[in-house]
Amino acid sequence: MVEIILASASPRRWELLKQIGLSFTVQVSNVEENEFKGDNPQKWVEQLAKDKASSVASSLKQGLVIGADTVVFKDGKILGKPKSECEAYDMLSFLSGAEHQVLTGIAIIDAMSGESYIDSEITRVKFRQLTEQEINAYIATGEPFDKAGAYGIQGLGALLVESITGCYFNVVGLPLQKLAQGLKRFGVEVLK
Amino acid sequence: MVEIILASASPRRWELLKQIGLSFTVQVSNVEENEFKGDNPQKWVEQLAKDKASSVASSLKQGLVIGADTVVFKDGKILGKPKSECEAYDMLSFLSGAEHQVLTGIAIIDAMSGESYIDSEITRVKFRQLTEQEINAYIATGEPFDKAGAYGIQGLGALLVESITGCYFNVVGLPLQKLAQGLKRFGVEVLK
Repeated sequence: MVEIILASASPRRWELLKQIGLSFTVQVSNVEENEFKGDNPQKWVEQLAKDKASSVASSLKQGLVIGADTVVFKDGKILGKPKSECEAYDMLSFLSGAEHQVLTGIAIIDAMSGESYIDSEITRVKFRQLTEQEINAYIATGEPFDKAGAYGIQGLGALLVESITGCYFNVVGLPLQKLAQGLKRFGVEVLK
Repeated sequence: MVEIILASASPRRWELLKQIGLSFTVQVSNVEENEFKGDNPQKWVEQLAKDKASSVASSLKQGLVIGADTVVFKDGKILGKPKSECEAYDMLSFLSGAEHQVLTGIAIIDAMSGESYIDSEITRVKFRQLTEQEINAYIATGEPFDKAGAYGIQGLGALLVESITGCYFNVVGLPLQKLAQGLKRFGVEVLK
């Protein structure tokens, strides 16, 4: 059985991999998440996922390295993780009452052969109309701060979302179905 | 603060209530899940949710009792929990490559006043085309047996689902957003 290495510090991603029964180790990449440039958010998250996986794979002799990057995209803007309460407030107000996209890029790199699989997934998320009070109450829970777009759908953020269209796990941080498809190409069958 | 009692034996529902930070106790109702009659699955799950909540509320002097019932609905048929491997196989084959609906009825009853809130939520779930081998592998994990429609989206069942439209938590067993709306009517603010 080939060793799987997750190049991510996100506990949400660890939980998602456990959910589908995968054994893995974690090795965090040192890739910095720079400001969005260009006009194609899909290419952007795929490139970041690839950079994260490459960075870890280059330090290993063997194993399958999984890299991922998740962003929130609306009206041509990419929302990363908020750095302050003020920024979190601006992001949540911007998302309130409207639809946005959540994009996750995934990259799987075989450290030995250098072979790679790169893909991305888009889910549409519709927020309900939030009151100022609700936004402040949500920020006060501390939940927004380590999350793209300032919310976590798998936490209290569930109460902000009206509906989604697409893959739920992509919104949490890893499109499980697509990941399983990618792993299959390297001979790893998740459901067997 | 009013006491909240969840009339459900489902550990998934306990987890979902914890996710939105609610304190509650559990008291399981003795309502039996009979065979679907009639042609309105929405009314059916609302009635079952009400029966479950009523059954527990009638034994209490005070508190808000939450009842819920989740079913899978496709082509006029309601799928409950499979009773055998064979039944699980039939259900998963029936769902494979197509869209179905997941309906959850929720009922909140104030044990003291008898006031109630009854509602339901529908989410559309699209399964990918499954192979015989995949269905058998999934059944062998044991996951289908205590779940309506023979799958759990929050487990390995994530790998069977192509996309959803609507509320994810409704598919797990409790539409959190709608529940929070209902609790608000009884003065319980989840996000405050």
